[in-house]
Amino acid sequence: MSRRKYLQIPGPTNIPDRVLRSLAQPIISHRGPEFEQLVADCIEGLKKVYRTENDILILPSSGSGALESAIVNLFSPGDTIAAASLGVFSERVALIAERHGLNVIRITKEWGQAIKPPEIAQVLADDRGHKIKAVCLPQNETTSGVANDLKAISQTIKETGHPALIMVDAVSSLACMPLETDAWGIDIVVSGSQKGLMLPPGLGIVSVSPKAWTLIEQSTMPKWYWDYQIIKDRLKTNQFPYTPPTSIFFGLKEALAIIEEEGLENVFARHKQIAEAVRNSSKAMGLELFAEQGYESNSVTVICLPQNVKYEDLERLLYEKYGLVIGGGLQKLQGQIFRIGHLGLIHNTDVYAIMCAVEAALVELGYQVELGTAARAISETFLPI
Amino acid sequence: MSRRKYLQIPGPTNIPDRVLRSLAQPIISHRGPEFEQLVADCIEGLKKVYRTENDILILPSSGSGALESAIVNLFSPGDTIAAASLGVFSERVALIAERHGLNVIRITKEWGQAIKPPEIAQVLADDRGHKIKAVCLPQNETTSGVANDLKAISQTIKETGHPALIMVDAVSSLACMPLETDAWGIDIVVSGSQKGLMLPPGLGIVSVSPKAWTLIEQSTMPKWYWDYQIIKDRLKTNQFPYTPPTSIFFGLKEALAIIEEEGLENVFARHKQIAEAVRNSSKAMGLELFAEQGYESNSVTVICLPQNVKYEDLERLLYEKYGLVIGGGLQKLQGQIFRIGHLGLIHNTDVYAIMCAVEAALVELGYQVELGTAARAISETFLPI
Repeated sequence: MSRRKYLQIPGPTNIPDRVLRSLAQPIISHRGPEFEQLVADCIEGLKKVYRTENDILILPSSGSGALESAIVNLFSPGDTIAAASLGVFSERVALIAERHGLNVIRITKEWGQAIKPPEIAQVLADDRGHKIKAVCLPQNETTSGVANDLKAISQTIKETGHPALIMVDAVSSLACMPLETDAWGIDIVVSGSQKGLMLPPGLGIVSVSPKAWTLIEQSTMPKWYWDYQIIKDRLKTNQFPYTPPTSIFFGLKEALAIIEEEGLENVFARHKQIAEAVRNSSKAMGLELFAEQGYESNSVTVICLPQNVKYEDLERLLYEKYGLVIGGGLQKLQGQIFRIGHLGLIHNTDVYAIMCAVEAALVELGYQVELGTAARAISETFLPI
Repeated sequence: MSRRKYLQIPGPTNIPDRVLRSLAQPIISHRGPEFEQLVADCIEGLKKVYRTENDILILPSSGSGALESAIVNLFSPGDTIAAASLGVFSERVALIAERHGLNVIRITKEWGQAIKPPEIAQVLADDRGHKIKAVCLPQNETTSGVANDLKAISQTIKETGHPALIMVDAVSSLACMPLETDAWGIDIVVSGSQKGLMLPPGLGIVSVSPKAWTLIEQSTMPKWYWDYQIIKDRLKTNQFPYTPPTSIFFGLKEALAIIEEEGLENVFARHKQIAEAVRNSSKAMGLELFAEQGYESNSVTVICLPQNVKYEDLERLLYEKYGLVIGGGLQKLQGQIFRIGHLGLIHNTDVYAIMCAVEAALVELGYQVELGTAARAISETFLPI
């Protein structure tokens, strides 16, 4: 079936034709001047997206791999960290840290709830001996469709005077929602290629503050592949300690150019408007959103399944009849919710296609809603009236 | 400059147009049935290339990352291994192992020399307490252009009766020269996507024997991203614990189909004949080969630089005038040798282009050789006379 597909999982995302074509270029030497220039251009562009002057490191890995790299570089066995646990992916960071011998103070929230600044402030206040080396949290948790107020949280952490670093999982938020690495003082920002950056999976990306480097120099955790000091040293000449996935760098340069052409603020505004249209049309159809009000993600919307609609039926119908791929509930949310990713390559017109297909499929599966409801709510969101 | 490039470093290699085009397909869900089928097909195809019934694991990493993954999965801190050190890449395995707290008994050879079965037998015989958990060696060391006789070595290790596992770095030899994982009893075979498999870099590949799994179950080394048990568990349903680089899998399936169409034995024969042509033409030009006679690699030929020819001049001239990218000497071999990769996508006609350009460039740089010498030696290698 060669129809156009709507890949609306919370990443990997659809990617622009310009990027796809750039991936199909003949392979170049990873030790030559052409690749070195490409790396330099990519890092310069990433700094603009990260809004940072910190070092940017690129890793041949998934986003989870990049999160593990941060753990093994920043800490030593026996160190203590505080970690928000709001869903599968933030809990994974806590799990990886424990696997590597850290003491993890979890700040656990019911899935669907955001973590609030006072909750973190309390954990830091209780830590009078300043044992906590870092606070780890996701900007966006795709399990539940919740976006934390990272600006307020980082400000609160600074105000406590506690010296803990701030480490943020921005895998599903970078280039989707505002993230001011330097202005907000985020020491470690971890992301990946396959979400807001509109690339295939294959690159992990990490920004590292000077304060983080101090911790990194003290780390005794065994490592070679992940070793930021080795990587940073080679990056001085835009090289890597091993063979990096060169092809994706062609795509990264192209994707960064696309983002720059649109303007980062416009990218954020587009994601915001599209997310509102998805939420408004869902609510207009009588569907309940899973995320806490006021903390809904602009990357992914998590929608409670109506009674009597089975997830498998909805998923199959959307895929087979409409070429639309949605995400299901993870772990305990399986069969309870469905997830619509709206990040990366997505524009206003696409929202009609996606949400009208969802409406039609729900109706076909017995859900009662007047046809056209979703489209009307989307237009009401978009139109200046 | 849009001329055709000859990327003749020891990998990444040139890759077929069919593979390049397959990389430019729209992104698919890494959790959907289409990708699961793709993974199943790729693993089935890889088993044929690996000549194994062992488990095949695919990692989102470089080849060095896959080597690190083997170290952290097989061993525990304080364990002892024996590691051949013949060049930069085999020494790297020893280094990674030491970084992770292993005792490494190095079997060090002068660069350019192969490791011989009796040398390994002696190390194992000296280890009366059977402390050595594994013998690590490369099938092919690209630093020096040396290929070890893996068949003889593995047979010798078996004959000693020592229970050590055999772990082989086949990054630059898989699908280039014969490797019988099961018939030779190799427990761990590590490879990558960007060499004989004719793909962009981005995938590490490891085969794991039942005997290796026994050791893996006892390992106390901290890990999550590299954890073979987690990966194996998810691979039961052709899934991954994280987002794998889906696009390269399209390419992998295509590359495996290309290899199957040619026939693995024919792929090996082609590499052997091309390597002979490169060596014969080099010798005909009066150039000295760096590798020990009888152990020259069929993936990469390392050639001593003639006196009065500077590597930088040769590299620049070949690149600018002929679009030919060669490799230089690593570490202490810098300025002493040059390396021609002839693995993956390369056929007989290409050898004329490569070696005649080398001949012409050397002559332009003052080296004395009769023009046409290389071509004659290549034809003499190819022709059945």
